[in-house]
Amino acid sequence: MAELTTLRMARYQLNLIYDGTEFAGFQRQRGRRTVQGVIEDCLRGLGWQGTAILAAGRTDAGVHAIGQVIAFDLDWSHHPDQLQNALNACLPADVAVSAARPVNSVFHPRYAATARCYHYRLYCAAVRDPLQERYAWRVQPKPDVTLLNAAAGLLVGRHDFGAFGKAPSPAGHTFRTIFQAEWKSTGSQIRFEVLGDAFLYHMVRRLVAVQVQIAQGRLPVEYLVDCLNRQTDPLSIELAPPQGLVLVEVAYPTSTT
Amino acid sequence: MAELTTLRMARYQLNLIYDGTEFAGFQRQRGRRTVQGVIEDCLRGLGWQGTAILAAGRTDAGVHAIGQVIAFDLDWSHHPDQLQNALNACLPADVAVSAARPVNSVFHPRYAATARCYHYRLYCAAVRDPLQERYAWRVQPKPDVTLLNAAAGLLVGRHDFGAFGKAPSPAGHTFRTIFQAEWKSTGSQIRFEVLGDAFLYHMVRRLVAVQVQIAQGRLPVEYLVDCLNRQTDPLSIELAPPQGLVLVEVAYPTSTT
Repeated sequence: MAELTTLRMARYQLNLIYDGTEFAGFQRQRGRRTVQGVIEDCLRGLGWQGTAILAAGRTDAGVHAIGQVIAFDLDWSHHPDQLQNALNACLPADVAVSAARPVNSVFHPRYAATARCYHYRLYCAAVRDPLQERYAWRVQPKPDVTLLNAAAGLLVGRHDFGAFGKAPSPAGHTFRTIFQAEWKSTGSQIRFEVLGDAFLYHMVRRLVAVQVQIAQGRLPVEYLVDCLNRQTDPLSIELAPPQGLVLVEVAYPTSTT
Repeated sequence: MAELTTLRMARYQLNLIYDGTEFAGFQRQRGRRTVQGVIEDCLRGLGWQGTAILAAGRTDAGVHAIGQVIAFDLDWSHHPDQLQNALNACLPADVAVSAARPVNSVFHPRYAATARCYHYRLYCAAVRDPLQERYAWRVQPKPDVTLLNAAAGLLVGRHDFGAFGKAPSPAGHTFRTIFQAEWKSTGSQIRFEVLGDAFLYHMVRRLVAVQVQIAQGRLPVEYLVDCLNRQTDPLSIELAPPQGLVLVEVAYPTSTT
């Protein structure tokens, strides 16, 4: 009997969508409402007895996700779709499971990831707009999109991004590779789309803030070059606010999952 | 002195943007949080002593607005832009004044209006999406957009819409004129855009619900024809949920304002 139970235990990967507004970030914190906390509470109701789920990235308080990836081991005798349905019935309105599937038993959503895509949305208006504020940062005057893209072009490649954020582990290095970085404009909205192998803590929000200041004429583009050459004080760049940021996708090599 | 004060009193028109999620509708209700209530509270702080502001339309609980129009009389000695700024500094995050201007002393935002434009947003997904749920209604299976537009075409013109809603006043008739009605599809979202002289209470939400059922093959298009010919039980159509609806614009003849 014990053997049968062991055999049914498998690792599952879930893709999550969440509105980060009412969460104190992804990572579990005592006494705070977090994404990890609400997911683990629901999993316990399904018999999960682990200590912590694994996640691709720890989004900050207020940051949203369309494609967060988590993994955990569970004894589940039904189809993965039923796991998805059971969790969605239990989860609050601001989190949902968009996909569930079994993966190999050593799959780790953070270490196995080969790329992450984030979007950051700005809107340009003289007055705050209550229908945009939840998912975008209001900037005024409107940044020049050509200048934004000139700045974004400088980010592509492998650089020491230590001016923009801290490594997740104290001894970790701060080199990261940006594959694509582009600003797209639609009406009053401008969206930064960035694809990289991995990102330092707060890196996307600092990249957005410095590009906006350049494109508003408040900083010379050389300042960004200095940042990439580590000629500036590390982490001296202000942070763009969290609500414009969305973790859109985490990519894995097909073989690992 | 009394005469001078009288002379400074003027009628002002404000355009409002609000996120209706946390409001029990536009209209003031004792003990409930309403748009009218929060606006009047802020106006009182600026010396307003009226009994009730005037509004173009009373949106339901959960319905949003980009272009609600209100009016009131106020003794204000500064520029209208300063009135807008003073109110935006006082109003909560889910309401903002997007424009303020003096209008003629008999302007009434409801009676002077010649047209109203509403949008209703659907999204089509097998699983609820926390990043879309606040401003859209999830429908599944995806309605056929050609069928949606065939149904919308039937609405255009002057009809007795009594099957779709009640007149605002008990003795009021239920004839209304729809100038334009169209569904537009973008990715997983489909948006109904409707322009009419005026709308009955709950009319847009019933128009949306019946068109979606037709376009999903759950009702024949003849049902809509019967509704427009008053051959159905009035108000028997279900309501589409409020969060997909936005009051986008209220139009006035230039001369009245």
